[in-house]
Amino acid sequence: MAFQKVVVAGGGVLGSQIAFQSAYCGLDTTIWLRSEGSIGRTQPKIDQLVKDYHAQIDEMAEALKKSQEEGEPMPTGAWAMGIADPDNFDPDACHKKVDEATKNLCLELDMAKAVEDADVVVESMAEQEKAKIDFYKKLAPLMPAKTVLVTNSSSLLPSTFARYTGRPDRYLAMHFANHIWKNNIAEVMAQSKTSAASFDAVIGFAKKIRMVPLPVHKEKAGYLLNSMLIPFLFSAMDLYVNGISDPESIDTAWVRGTGSPNGPFQILDVVGLVTAYNIVQPYTKIPGFVAPYNFKGISAMLKKKIDAGETGVAAGKGFYDYSQK
Amino acid sequence: MAFQKVVVAGGGVLGSQIAFQSAYCGLDTTIWLRSEGSIGRTQPKIDQLVKDYHAQIDEMAEALKKSQEEGEPMPTGAWAMGIADPDNFDPDACHKKVDEATKNLCLELDMAKAVEDADVVVESMAEQEKAKIDFYKKLAPLMPAKTVLVTNSSSLLPSTFARYTGRPDRYLAMHFANHIWKNNIAEVMAQSKTSAASFDAVIGFAKKIRMVPLPVHKEKAGYLLNSMLIPFLFSAMDLYVNGISDPESIDTAWVRGTGSPNGPFQILDVVGLVTAYNIVQPYTKIPGFVAPYNFKGISAMLKKKIDAGETGVAAGKGFYDYSQK
Repeated sequence: MAFQKVVVAGGGVLGSQIAFQSAYCGLDTTIWLRSEGSIGRTQPKIDQLVKDYHAQIDEMAEALKKSQEEGEPMPTGAWAMGIADPDNFDPDACHKKVDEATKNLCLELDMAKAVEDADVVVESMAEQEKAKIDFYKKLAPLMPAKTVLVTNSSSLLPSTFARYTGRPDRYLAMHFANHIWKNNIAEVMAQSKTSAASFDAVIGFAKKIRMVPLPVHKEKAGYLLNSMLIPFLFSAMDLYVNGISDPESIDTAWVRGTGSPNGPFQILDVVGLVTAYNIVQPYTKIPGFVAPYNFKGISAMLKKKIDAGETGVAAGKGFYDYSQK
Repeated sequence: MAFQKVVVAGGGVLGSQIAFQSAYCGLDTTIWLRSEGSIGRTQPKIDQLVKDYHAQIDEMAEALKKSQEEGEPMPTGAWAMGIADPDNFDPDACHKKVDEATKNLCLELDMAKAVEDADVVVESMAEQEKAKIDFYKKLAPLMPAKTVLVTNSSSLLPSTFARYTGRPDRYLAMHFANHIWKNNIAEVMAQSKTSAASFDAVIGFAKKIRMVPLPVHKEKAGYLLNSMLIPFLFSAMDLYVNGISDPESIDTAWVRGTGSPNGPFQILDVVGLVTAYNIVQPYTKIPGFVAPYNFKGISAMLKKKIDAGETGVAAGKGFYDYSQK
């Protein structure tokens, strides 16, 4: 079941980007908004995306031309994979797709009308549990049976809402990063009742709108990225507050040690300290942070690979195969 | 007290590199080895380093020339900061320093003779507690009073050995990364009895041999880098063994989400799965991993910065100052 008719509920920063990217990829896309006021806030975001996409396409054309003239690889960061592949890039065709996107995209206040033939509804509303439940209760009876419903929530789990959707088997999460035309990943996460068919359909939808789908087969707070980023940031802040070292030295250790472009405190500055503070609060009430890591499982998994001789780069095989390099 | 006479005890992979880098930087350097057999194993490592340094200097000269001709910044990774600064680079002078390094460097079997006038002894022996204690007991009475003693141990803490050194106030850790001429960081870590003067002297020594010193003011297993890397790798393996997702998707989430060159499973392949397995073992015996993070301290630190309006990049100031950019 390839999705053709896409509805995005909510026109915030990510809602607008998801809808515009979907329209850019040729899908018939509707943004459902609650009020005339929401239209007044969403339309300028769309107008800005049109400019951003055109500018990005020009920048890519420039970078590709330069790299071909000099026989050098393209500098990392110049390319937006959500817009086109570098080895099959036609700037004029891309500019045309941006112009057509504005035609494929409509804003709609009537919820019933917006979703009447929807293949997929992407819920991208504010991160408030009660507001989401109210929205799902209204939405559930209006969607046709075929509609697959996904939530873009970062911090709330889909299992909290499945019972209100009227379709727990066709309800799951699809989590995007900001600037989706550049950071084109979509974490696709099932809850316990999600069917394999709807999971696969959403993976296909992610590919269709040029995202790299990252399958998350079981519900996990933080999906993949934040499940790693949060303990990492905790460990760095812990070194600092315990007087072990200072942010700059800690960042230098990480950047020099791993080749990453940013250290933990540089990442925290981008995330914002208020967000970091809010994440830390629940943990201040417990004496130690009990991370329920499955160490017995980790140990068994490593043992199995070691017994098979797959011990890493030096052995030619570890988690990856290095034998062809 | 600037160190002039350097002794490295042990001629393994890192011992050889530390000694050669010290000699390259013009310091009178001795490698103390236990036996003729050790000389037979260490001399070829030194010979290889001579070749590696010459080759690296040629590569840097090439990269600098190209970047100047094209008016482009130098590609990351081309430069070895342990060898020279890019804005003050004289390839001939560097080649000469390599040749002189071989003259500055001598191998010595007699421990008393090796350390008789040492400003600093860098202990770079095998990671075995008992062997290190035996070594320190023999070494302690032979060193002059001025000698500062540092250990390059990755996994054993200096407080374990301080009492055997005859100079707990002049004993601390100095931890290098492999390929120190490229990965030129040195984590300099005090134990509770280390004096400020010897800490500062070792920071100065690190700079003298072109390392970026990372001060670690209190003893911490894992120093800075591994204190962050290990919880990060645990969180990634946990996602995998619990069936949340697969190594490739987990790596993609990290690489795309943070711009890092490698994901956790790619790092594990480089570290080697045997090392990872050994690190995991102690944790398999406890039901949950109690990370003793100081969350109350982290919370208070963030609150203080938030109250001061230093909330990150968007505010122009967070852990760093962005107001000039």
